[in-house]
Amino acid sequence: MRSLILPIALLVSSTFTLPSFATVSDTSLDKAEQLREIAQRSHLGFDIVESLTVEVGPRLAGTSADARAVAWAQAKFSELGFDKIYKQPVSVRHWQRGAASAEILSPFPQPLAITALGDSVATPKEGLTGEVIFFDSVAALKQADPKKVNGKIVYIDARMHQHREGKEYSLAVAGRSIGSSVASEKGAIALMIRSVGTDKSRMPHTGNMRYQAGVKKIPAGAISTSDAMMLMAMNKRGKTITVHMNLDTTMHKPTTSYNVIGEVTGSTYPDEYILIGAHLDSWDEGTGALDDGAGVGITMAAAKLIGQFKPKRTIRVVLFANEEGGLIGAKEYRDANASELHKIKLAGESDFGARSIWRFDSQVHPKNLDLMAQIAKVLQPLNINHGDNKAGGGPDVSILPAKGVPVFSLRQDGTDYFDYHHTANDTLDKINPQQLRQNVAAWAIVAYLAAESEAPLLPLTIK
Amino acid sequence: MRSLILPIALLVSSTFTLPSFATVSDTSLDKAEQLREIAQRSHLGFDIVESLTVEVGPRLAGTSADARAVAWAQAKFSELGFDKIYKQPVSVRHWQRGAASAEILSPFPQPLAITALGDSVATPKEGLTGEVIFFDSVAALKQADPKKVNGKIVYIDARMHQHREGKEYSLAVAGRSIGSSVASEKGAIALMIRSVGTDKSRMPHTGNMRYQAGVKKIPAGAISTSDAMMLMAMNKRGKTITVHMNLDTTMHKPTTSYNVIGEVTGSTYPDEYILIGAHLDSWDEGTGALDDGAGVGITMAAAKLIGQFKPKRTIRVVLFANEEGGLIGAKEYRDANASELHKIKLAGESDFGARSIWRFDSQVHPKNLDLMAQIAKVLQPLNINHGDNKAGGGPDVSILPAKGVPVFSLRQDGTDYFDYHHTANDTLDKINPQQLRQNVAAWAIVAYLAAESEAPLLPLTIK
Repeated sequence: MRSLILPIALLVSSTFTLPSFATVSDTSLDKAEQLREIAQRSHLGFDIVESLTVEVGPRLAGTSADARAVAWAQAKFSELGFDKIYKQPVSVRHWQRGAASAEILSPFPQPLAITALGDSVATPKEGLTGEVIFFDSVAALKQADPKKVNGKIVYIDARMHQHREGKEYSLAVAGRSIGSSVASEKGAIALMIRSVGTDKSRMPHTGNMRYQAGVKKIPAGAISTSDAMMLMAMNKRGKTITVHMNLDTTMHKPTTSYNVIGEVTGSTYPDEYILIGAHLDSWDEGTGALDDGAGVGITMAAAKLIGQFKPKRTIRVVLFANEEGGLIGAKEYRDANASELHKIKLAGESDFGARSIWRFDSQVHPKNLDLMAQIAKVLQPLNINHGDNKAGGGPDVSILPAKGVPVFSLRQDGTDYFDYHHTANDTLDKINPQQLRQNVAAWAIVAYLAAESEAPLLPLTIK
Repeated sequence: MRSLILPIALLVSSTFTLPSFATVSDTSLDKAEQLREIAQRSHLGFDIVESLTVEVGPRLAGTSADARAVAWAQAKFSELGFDKIYKQPVSVRHWQRGAASAEILSPFPQPLAITALGDSVATPKEGLTGEVIFFDSVAALKQADPKKVNGKIVYIDARMHQHREGKEYSLAVAGRSIGSSVASEKGAIALMIRSVGTDKSRMPHTGNMRYQAGVKKIPAGAISTSDAMMLMAMNKRGKTITVHMNLDTTMHKPTTSYNVIGEVTGSTYPDEYILIGAHLDSWDEGTGALDDGAGVGITMAAAKLIGQFKPKRTIRVVLFANEEGGLIGAKEYRDANASELHKIKLAGESDFGARSIWRFDSQVHPKNLDLMAQIAKVLQPLNINHGDNKAGGGPDVSILPAKGVPVFSLRQDGTDYFDYHHTANDTLDKINPQQLRQNVAAWAIVAYLAAESEAPLLPLTIK
């Protein structure tokens, strides 16, 4: 690991030497437009995702595949000629999925397509059997009489519909996140949820869950939306439904993974960073093409293409470890680099699939809004609108604004993102190469123009 | 089982007593139009498919689920008030799927989504490992040097694209049907094929295969189209690919299943039959909603709705056993009823999913083409064109024209049929209730008007 500690004098130099709030030069704007055309003809982004999904595939944090992904990322940065390549250790949980099965025993025997939620404990080896009690939300479960829940398998049927912005996710995901502890407190023996997804398919969606401290851990799994529809139709028939489920999982000792970082060194302000990134880890059932191979391909390709134009500031691509475990790599990045975060002048993560970007948002100092407007103008031919100054920046960078780091979001069309999210179906064939190129072009433009800004990029007022 | 033997005199009576080649009366045409409107508002077809998929689910021939399906069918016919309900025994193979897994060991380890082909032998308990040799068709495999194939796992990457008529299926399916014997003759240790399907998904497609007599049986499985894309991309990297596969299957002793038959007795010519049907069995991974629960719902509902109008001829709904094993129930039906087939005046099977019907074809005696034209006119408001007189009639009835039985086809839009065909994803949510109602209306019209024909329905000239 390379040390990130640099002399303070160097850190602050650019903000004081740049002319005040001029933005980017016409030359830089010309180059950004060239970059836009080059990126739209480049296969590089797709080639990178293909390479990651074919040569590594699934890469759950802590596994040997995750270690291969780290080695792959270093080798890929090297092959692409990045100036600096290094990694930062991150302690990660190492949870392992085994076989998963479930079946309705009565009144109408048939199998259910199920997957264990991430971090779930296993069932006993022989599985467990119980009567199913139905809820349509965690809120409804919270109000249930414990006497009715005790000894049963709780089923939560929270539904989610397609939206460009995926806006029902945060609501539907509650059952996955906290459902098992709420159920356990009322004496349930297991949790089964309708997959948090918008598809109609036989692909259960996994995803992270957490056990509340002091509450007995019970196994938790998700059935596919197709199975959910069938189960609800069966429940309408008014008979007691008994399910047998068997989830094999293992929680190993924590292990070390890595944030992998590649930089294109700035020609004028090498110690000022435009951070773009994605997360390197993925769930274990698909090949993590959309979540988040696409982000890896988009941001690595964007930085590589920017390299030809010798950006003034450094473009830093961070591939975060273990996002799926709860921003584990991102938190480590934030904490280990606490004294250096002011050098990150703008940050963004691509982590919402591979569909076209339709909107550009920022969360920057008001004095930098002129720059954002200039960037937005260059994005316009890509059919990207200029949005607001309330961007989150993407999961792994969403924790940086609290430390003063400005962020941006290039918002993708997420209409079908939750059809594939966290399923075995998250594979390369879901990526439209042309839409991916539009993404690469947009990321290249934002990162390049931020790197070229004649004006200083100011920290957010820290709340 | 009810005997089908009736006096010869009765069998031929109607053809001699009906006026010559007049077709259907205006009264019957009026009723057919009423039936069309009623069917388009009826939920019955969908309710039947829901009942079958929820209360029985997967029903592979020979299994206890198949036996439950037979009981379900009898009970459903009874609940719907059919006049005669009986079953005909059929000897069926009883093949059972166990766990299936495969993984690439080198050069880039990752799992493959695989399923065993129907009737495949198992691998050794510990699985088998081999180098993969690639072919794009059975034809290419046939020309391969046995020295290069010997000891390897043969992979066939035959592709298939979406078409309304599913016309690439018969070509692509060759690898599934005979690939294992062709590979085995050249010394291969196993067969792996790209799924015979048009989807981009992680759902492997099973289906029937057959071993050539005298050739060593080797295990055969299909990987999903997503895995096929990944494997081909890996193969382009030019390194030897080694795969481990483990398919657990069991061939039990043959057992007895049943063709289940329900009839609405004709008011004037009870011994003349309009046969409509579907197959009751399904593959084991989905719930057989499209293949062929839809056909079961469509034809049962059509016959039930016709019942209100007291058809002159008998409407016979046949739910065939074990179509998936190779028209096993259909062949038994043909052979056991050999002396009675001339009483079947027209036959058709619905077995191509649940999408809208776009064309009506027949294969009838030329003197009955006027009747077909009258039927076609009543179908027109359903956006169904009148096609030709070369209909096959559907898989299970396709063997009847050779015995002189006239058939018809109501051709469905099969564009996405092979996205789900023979996968775990063949579930109720894939059925559009409105399109299913159009199907029920069309089947009701054809069967009713054939039952009402004033003209005799003549046997085909037997070739």
